[in-house]
Amino acid sequence: MPLLGLLPRRAWAALLSQLLRPPCASCTGAVRCQSQVAEAVLTSQLKAHQEKPNFIIKIPKGTRDLSPQHMVVREKILDLVISCFKRHGAKGMDTPAFELKETLTEKYGEDSGLMYDLKDQGGELLSLRYDLTYPSSLTDLCEVPFARYLAMNKVKKMKRYHVGKVWRRESPSIVQGRYREFCQCDFDIAGQFDPMIPDAECLKIMCEILSGLQLGDFLIKVNDRRIVDGMFAACGVPESKFRAICSSIDKLDKMAWKDVRHEMVAKKGLAPEVADRIGDYVQCHGGVSLVEQMFQDPRLSQNKQALEGLEDLKLLFEYLNLFGIAEKISFDLSLARGLDYYTGVIYEAVLLQTPTQAGEEPLNVGSVAAGGRYDGLVGMFDPKGHKVPCVGLSIGVERIFYIVEQRMKTKGEKVRTTETQVFVATPQKNFLQERLKLITELWDAGIKAEMLYKNNPKLLTQLHYCESTGIPLVVIIGEQELKEGIIKIRSVASREEVAIKRENLVAEIQKRLSES
Amino acid sequence: MPLLGLLPRRAWAALLSQLLRPPCASCTGAVRCQSQVAEAVLTSQLKAHQEKPNFIIKIPKGTRDLSPQHMVVREKILDLVISCFKRHGAKGMDTPAFELKETLTEKYGEDSGLMYDLKDQGGELLSLRYDLTYPSSLTDLCEVPFARYLAMNKVKKMKRYHVGKVWRRESPSIVQGRYREFCQCDFDIAGQFDPMIPDAECLKIMCEILSGLQLGDFLIKVNDRRIVDGMFAACGVPESKFRAICSSIDKLDKMAWKDVRHEMVAKKGLAPEVADRIGDYVQCHGGVSLVEQMFQDPRLSQNKQALEGLEDLKLLFEYLNLFGIAEKISFDLSLARGLDYYTGVIYEAVLLQTPTQAGEEPLNVGSVAAGGRYDGLVGMFDPKGHKVPCVGLSIGVERIFYIVEQRMKTKGEKVRTTETQVFVATPQKNFLQERLKLITELWDAGIKAEMLYKNNPKLLTQLHYCESTGIPLVVIIGEQELKEGIIKIRSVASREEVAIKRENLVAEIQKRLSES
Repeated sequence: MPLLGLLPRRAWAALLSQLLRPPCASCTGAVRCQSQVAEAVLTSQLKAHQEKPNFIIKIPKGTRDLSPQHMVVREKILDLVISCFKRHGAKGMDTPAFELKETLTEKYGEDSGLMYDLKDQGGELLSLRYDLTYPSSLTDLCEVPFARYLAMNKVKKMKRYHVGKVWRRESPSIVQGRYREFCQCDFDIAGQFDPMIPDAECLKIMCEILSGLQLGDFLIKVNDRRIVDGMFAACGVPESKFRAICSSIDKLDKMAWKDVRHEMVAKKGLAPEVADRIGDYVQCHGGVSLVEQMFQDPRLSQNKQALEGLEDLKLLFEYLNLFGIAEKISFDLSLARGLDYYTGVIYEAVLLQTPTQAGEEPLNVGSVAAGGRYDGLVGMFDPKGHKVPCVGLSIGVERIFYIVEQRMKTKGEKVRTTETQVFVATPQKNFLQERLKLITELWDAGIKAEMLYKNNPKLLTQLHYCESTGIPLVVIIGEQELKEGIIKIRSVASREEVAIKRENLVAEIQKRLSES
Repeated sequence: MPLLGLLPRRAWAALLSQLLRPPCASCTGAVRCQSQVAEAVLTSQLKAHQEKPNFIIKIPKGTRDLSPQHMVVREKILDLVISCFKRHGAKGMDTPAFELKETLTEKYGEDSGLMYDLKDQGGELLSLRYDLTYPSSLTDLCEVPFARYLAMNKVKKMKRYHVGKVWRRESPSIVQGRYREFCQCDFDIAGQFDPMIPDAECLKIMCEILSGLQLGDFLIKVNDRRIVDGMFAACGVPESKFRAICSSIDKLDKMAWKDVRHEMVAKKGLAPEVADRIGDYVQCHGGVSLVEQMFQDPRLSQNKQALEGLEDLKLLFEYLNLFGIAEKISFDLSLARGLDYYTGVIYEAVLLQTPTQAGEEPLNVGSVAAGGRYDGLVGMFDPKGHKVPCVGLSIGVERIFYIVEQRMKTKGEKVRTTETQVFVATPQKNFLQERLKLITELWDAGIKAEMLYKNNPKLLTQLHYCESTGIPLVVIIGEQELKEGIIKIRSVASREEVAIKRENLVAEIQKRLSES
């Protein structure tokens, strides 16, 4: 514990403000005159602190440490995702973990209760970056920071990806693999371009990633915000109810139509016949043929907005064909993505059969990727309201991590948490020096190598370490080898040993590693 | 803006507590009875919000966005660092961005004023992870979270690295490239092992990384906490002054001895003759010979602690020789690392000549890596006080990013912010379809490819895009090519074009990319 005398005033304030809870600012004032009081209160608290009989260590509610096992799975998955983004010419970027609360509330409004605010320690009001959509659905982490970035730097064109942590104060449902701190993974294309080309690329990227991850068969539902609104209008939903009805429709992936209908009519006061008209639409899904069909629809075809949406979807499907992914895409009128800021095409990827192997509990993971076009968001952050059209997607990496981890668990797959290729061992005592010389050669040649930090380890202990950690090769040096200027290379799997010239060590190891 | 009616109670509380600032808890209470008041206040505030004439967008003080240019530099450097950690058999891990404030204050004491606390939104008191040492010196990000992790999970042995963001509320000195949010990069070895073997490996790792990064010549100062304390005792420093004197000594890399001496005598009340005795020591540095010399030192040799430290340093140098890095290491009695928690060897790497090229301003970057042995820290987090010996290091990546960026700036080096290998172009109108087919082939073959999102871009615009973004290859398709079933491949650098069979496209591209 620090000497109290050394405590700078600010620290006093910070500590004080914890004890008695007025705003920090007034504390700082208080401190000047009250440091005796402070010292008294504080000392007692610090004492209590030191003496507390059983100091329980834990981590914050809804968070977790990521073990090496977790990290290996994440690294694999993120590498695949990021290399896909790069394959499509995206640049990386990052933004601070927190933003001015103003910047965030500018957009989040009613969700802001779920935002982690930083304590007012004098200065700006800050909150940890949070994302846009509702807890139950997938989100685009970086849209607010990204929109803020574009507006602030007057960037009119950018294809970028962003992988980072975000934080949400929802009650964590650990079983679903959802936490208060989680990783998000976004790709967005900002700029004024010819219609639907970037939109189609976003869907192509989703397909490449989901196929690459081998999560099983998947489908991407597509709709257009203008078709949703047009449909509501055409069915006679009063405009004031659009948003409420939208969020009911959103529940169709979890609830049956009749329950959604009941919610709309009973809870949200929608006329039954209006609800039924909606029902006729939201139960439709199909390919480009459904788009054609909707052009002929007596109601929709009367709605300008809806027609624009349909025109775009038609063009989209043409591009999806050329990308060879049309059969993965389903025009689905029940897809609403209850978000204000979407202005055009919207999409959401779902796994078709949750990857349930024998003995594995079925996972309800919801959608694993989603996104859409949001042409208005950047304008909200631009003082002059200059718009920058954007379309993007977010990969639900946390859900994907969860699926993959569950699978490995049931399959009993073990992951290697290190990448060590060679272990340096000796059967004799007093060979630490030789081992250190050997391992230096390996490290300096860029070979991943380990040895035990003991002067005289038992050979069995050393070999056992290799087996338990999955190190494929062992190089062994002992008196015999030293005398003859050789090294034994042992394959841990086959237990075969061969003797090679000492000077060929690195070359020989590299040869074997390249072969395996 | 959300319909007020929709605001959930918690949101009310959150918003309310911002307007009138009592603790959030009492708000939640207040809300129940006072929602009219709330609504009134709130609406007015929201109005103000919407109407504010010029809403200025900025990011929090002391933070910054990382542009694609920044990200490229970081990725390169972090890849090199992490691959070195992996080469030495380290596992990755991560911990939450925030910890219980209690967990952090347990260690930080007087620094806690620089900690970012989260607002009390009902629940636990949290703070963003912060690191241990003083703003001016290098730090080991993960020691508290790491120690907490080991104690919590009863892990007795672990070699791990951790790369992540940390946050500190110090007044940012942007010029020095220091921010309130920054990345740290740690490697630690926890466990009971034979003396100095892991310690020596930490120094080996530092050397590999600093040589690999080619920052110019460097030196690693080494000392031992027990030698520092022994030296103080031997010189007659009263134990109550150890820590204060320690932090004076720490300043010797920035201040002249006479100034440090003055601080110790005038400010910290050390007897002049004691200060002079210290002076004799702290001006010594050298290799293993200096260690030998100190064994003979009349004062130090009387001090048990100091002798233990010297014994260990002697052994350390033996291992450093075998690792072939002894000449990079300097036993330096002025190295104190003013940290309570170090218990044995301590070290700090400094660049010898700051990489000043012609016209480049000299950079005062301080140390670029540091660490040491801390055998007591984990015990602090263990209810029963079980100790786990640890030794580790932290790479000052932010400073390294800064150095590299400054260098590139003065050299006028341009970084590619994308990795695109091939651009798909056409000289004719109405070739969007063909371009989409072509680029799909490339993407599906794992080739990084781009095209312009326009129906009919000009050829010059397309070629200019390649030159400005550094894309090396262009594949061109037009009527001619389509008719003859060929594709033109153009090298952007040499502007040479060759025609190849359409069906050989992918193979040909891959061949060229593997050659380049």
